[in-house]
Amino acid sequence: MLLSAVRTDVYAQVQHFYAHQMQALDGGRFADYAATFCEDGSFQHSPGAEPAVGREAIVDELVAFHRRFENDPVQRRHWFNHIALEEQPDGSLQSTVYALVVTVRPGGKPEIAPSCVVHDVLVVEGDAVHTRSRLVTHDQMF
Amino acid sequence: MLLSAVRTDVYAQVQHFYAHQMQALDGGRFADYAATFCEDGSFQHSPGAEPAVGREAIVDELVAFHRRFENDPVQRRHWFNHIALEEQPDGSLQSTVYALVVTVRPGGKPEIAPSCVVHDVLVVEGDAVHTRSRLVTHDQMF
Amino acid sequence: MLLSAVRTDVYAQVQHFYAHQMQALDGGRFADYAATFCEDGSFQHSPGAEPAVGREAIVDELVAFHRRFENDPVQRRHWFNHIALEEQPDGSLQSTVYALVVTVRPGGKPEIAPSCVVHDVLVVEGDAVHTRSRLVTHDQMF
Repeated sequence: MLLSAVRTDVYAQVQHFYAHQMQALDGGRFADYAATFCEDGSFQHSPGAEPAVGREAIVDELVAFHRRFENDPVQRRHWFNHIALEEQPDGSLQSTVYALVVTVRPGGKPEIAPSCVVHDVLVVEGDAVHTRSRLVTHDQMF
Repeated sequence: MLLSAVRTDVYAQVQHFYAHQMQALDGGRFADYAATFCEDGSFQHSPGAEPAVGREAIVDELVAFHRRFENDPVQRRHWFNHIALEEQPDGSLQSTVYALVVTVRPGGKPEIAPSCVVHDVLVVEGDAVHTRSRLVTHDQMF
Repeated sequence: MLLSAVRTDVYAQVQHFYAHQMQALDGGRFADYAATFCEDGSFQHSPGAEPAVGREAIVDELVAFHRRFENDPVQRRHWFNHIALEEQPDGSLQSTVYALVVTVRPGGKPEIAPSCVVHDVLVVEGDAVHTRSRLVTHDQMF
């Protein structure tokens, strides 16, 4: 069964949620990004990594990751495509999304790598969407 | 007239349809992909190719195409952008969509080519969307 | 506050508006593109450029820009991602969108550059969306 019964307004809501969430990440607003997760949400940026659990841990993880770019004026942008939702028995949404990371340095051309798949569990409550868990897999590792 | 009168819920429905359809294709679930077409749907992956008509023929076409990757561990992902819909007199939707093919091999960087335009006719009936016909044109051939 | 209260139907409407708007631009239908702006709309394709104000000036700007490609058979496609909307006090929408320019020449592979951010103010009135102003910033200049 390919056609998901997820409501179309929820679909648009999730798209918009991702737009704000990822612009927060790419803008270095890590507390805003972490706030898009459930309070006990988990974030695992690659299958081998230890998941960061809770908003504070997510911020810490991002600060640590971005330390390597401290003297490297880089702009990263995470592009998403083909957000496929499946409703879970508990009412949460399993969300499977293509992702490409665009990296730009001053005067340079964008590097577009890696190609990833984002595996989220999302919780929608009224107007609010939160990520309960995020695991990112990488296409070049297979 | 640039603004299409297509209903916004139908627009979200079509986006979601494409997400599941193309994840089925890229995941090698060819029967699932073929099932997103009308029973007598046609699929023409380039203007010079003979269209495959009917779900069985579409599966056969995809199996034949992917045979060339049999010993080549490659992950392909079809990205879509700017889904522009126009309602046809018979109630079907003409859908014109940008597409880029992302190809990744183990340890490699994604190659992003070719750039295409997908020309679909879609049939929406209640919760169900099906592709009645698909013709893919390629930007580097012009 | 990350979650925008913009209505989900308006969100889908804006996505669809952008699809038609940018396919008009990439298709060389400059009058159609200009018609997606308010009558006194302004279009600034980079921070250093003088904005073109009004539909006639926007068409003139595009004709002048594309003159450089007159003997260069090039197909450009503007991809958008992560449309983030914020409602303004006057009811207009601030729209912040990632953009990548895909450029293809006959027989070639797509070049994907530059990476930009589109900063729009949009006016939604019933079924109609118009761009009141557009400023495009470029990621490699920072």
